[in-house]
Amino acid sequence: MADKLTGQTLIYKNPPHIVSQASVVGPEEGKGPFGKSFDLVYEDAKCGKQTWEKGEKKMVSDAIGLALGKASVSPSDIDFIIAGDLLDQIITANFIARDYDIAFVGIYGACSTMIEALALGSSYLDGGFADCILAFSSSHYQTAERQYRTPLEYGNQYPPYKQWTVTGTGAYILGWLGGQVWITHSTFGKVLDLGIKDPNDMGSVMAPAAADTILQHFMDLSRGPQDYDLILTGDLGRAGLDILNSMLEEKNVKLGQKLNDCGAMIFGEDKKYGTGGSGCAASAVIIGSVIIPKIIAGELNRVLAVGTGALLSSLSTLQNESIPSIAHAVVIEKIPG
Amino acid sequence: MADKLTGQTLIYKNPPHIVSQASVVGPEEGKGPFGKSFDLVYEDAKCGKQTWEKGEKKMVSDAIGLALGKASVSPSDIDFIIAGDLLDQIITANFIARDYDIAFVGIYGACSTMIEALALGSSYLDGGFADCILAFSSSHYQTAERQYRTPLEYGNQYPPYKQWTVTGTGAYILGWLGGQVWITHSTFGKVLDLGIKDPNDMGSVMAPAAADTILQHFMDLSRGPQDYDLILTGDLGRAGLDILNSMLEEKNVKLGQKLNDCGAMIFGEDKKYGTGGSGCAASAVIIGSVIIPKIIAGELNRVLAVGTGALLSSLSTLQNESIPSIAHAVVIEKIPG
Repeated sequence: MADKLTGQTLIYKNPPHIVSQASVVGPEEGKGPFGKSFDLVYEDAKCGKQTWEKGEKKMVSDAIGLALGKASVSPSDIDFIIAGDLLDQIITANFIARDYDIAFVGIYGACSTMIEALALGSSYLDGGFADCILAFSSSHYQTAERQYRTPLEYGNQYPPYKQWTVTGTGAYILGWLGGQVWITHSTFGKVLDLGIKDPNDMGSVMAPAAADTILQHFMDLSRGPQDYDLILTGDLGRAGLDILNSMLEEKNVKLGQKLNDCGAMIFGEDKKYGTGGSGCAASAVIIGSVIIPKIIAGELNRVLAVGTGALLSSLSTLQNESIPSIAHAVVIEKIPG
Repeated sequence: MADKLTGQTLIYKNPPHIVSQASVVGPEEGKGPFGKSFDLVYEDAKCGKQTWEKGEKKMVSDAIGLALGKASVSPSDIDFIIAGDLLDQIITANFIARDYDIAFVGIYGACSTMIEALALGSSYLDGGFADCILAFSSSHYQTAERQYRTPLEYGNQYPPYKQWTVTGTGAYILGWLGGQVWITHSTFGKVLDLGIKDPNDMGSVMAPAAADTILQHFMDLSRGPQDYDLILTGDLGRAGLDILNSMLEEKNVKLGQKLNDCGAMIFGEDKKYGTGGSGCAASAVIIGSVIIPKIIAGELNRVLAVGTGALLSSLSTLQNESIPSIAHAVVIEKIPG
């Protein structure tokens, strides 16, 4: 009966369109090499609100408004919101959903959440369960540091392999009408744990999950590097990207320049940001505002977008647990014709 | 194209079977009126482990093993795990998923998570995306109190409308082969917020979401109380159940004895547990071990199971935010013939 599943990969018979996308980011992301690509850059990460958390919500709210506008879709056209974020109890997504009169599906995949939302949303559209879906995810440097590591006010010193959580959000409208790219496949990943316990070393934690999902995707579809113009992970950073590259080369998968990472891209080479960006927003804003425009422009044809998530909590770190990780992937292509 | 959606309700063309279910609970639940219905009762809520959190994982692990055994299914037969729990970053579900070589979809719907997992899993099966799915959820009195309110060691006093988080877990195998009940419809709920800020008063928070989803479900399918033998909410407790009943009566929906709540049931009338049980496990274990057997025995024909979730975090409480809520529903019926 599962005629759309092979291995861990879903093959859509009616690939859903990404009708529109909008990205809102904070000041650091605005200063980076892709600053001009985003729809809205806040100079103040609180967005004029009282708390960082309210600032994060403001960014999401703005991104949704922009994405709806670009798609010429009103909230009443949307069948489901599928969303999640990094904060405990995905409180950003929940608090945004209460502002809309739309059925809500809350998800959590750490920094893989944006791709998980796109994969679930695409499945709901292809399966005949929806005509229009709003998917979003967000992360925020100040809210994430306070929750996962130490509040910034403590002035903690970080190791050089540390990553900088991207402040921002991407909202995607999935549907059938409009848009120039579609999602043809999704690969849901397995949870892996190689025993790393350092909550600053996310790249090392997530690289094995990324490798596993990429290799699984290739195997499921009998595809390889030649079938993709770009394989883009979410937030491994430069250190994690090197590890991923080595792991793939060990399996004789040579991606070379076809492999990149949103976290490694978003802040350029500036060492202030450690080994690069992290967070749900890294993939949400880079894929939406940098990669999709390149697909539309014909610079890229087929892209495998791989969201990577480190599945830790502050409690699991305190209890000396190692950090599992996961990676989910979607294939984004230009709609032919 | 959304030929299986009406309003917020999915209508399955090939309703997936609940092939098997297993419930594992802690000592308090074992002492309650349904203690003998559960597959396994631990006398020690740590299950012999070092921490409450490890105890919660042990219960989930046991329930999965029992559910697999009842279904005569091996882990390699399972296409996806869909799961979540109450702990920050759904760390119980993540840590269980790392023990299996199976693609994982992490979700979060607070105490509605079990029904959210059943709804998503049913959709994946009906949509042709899977042949077999493992769905589970868990909650745990000691782990939840520490995280959401105050650690029990503080000896905090609670108001009488307080609920007692159910320690336990339910694991469900969804598929096509075996089982005597199936899931014919799912209704995903909207996020509502009526402005309540007391993190002890979950029943009042969640009752409006339950009412909204029940009324939406009736409207979507042109159904009413006469079409159901039981409408069972997740964890409103007795106080919340009264509120729900009043809200429905205001809309001229009179359910009488057909309306009940897993949280109100699980500990009986004992005031030690405040106004009743709460937590993902309340619906997970009562539906699986008490209600489904009644459907199989012919005592109930059609049941609307409504998972109810309060979408708070400890941070949102500290920041003086009100508490949004959500309710998701599935229709469970005996497979005809």
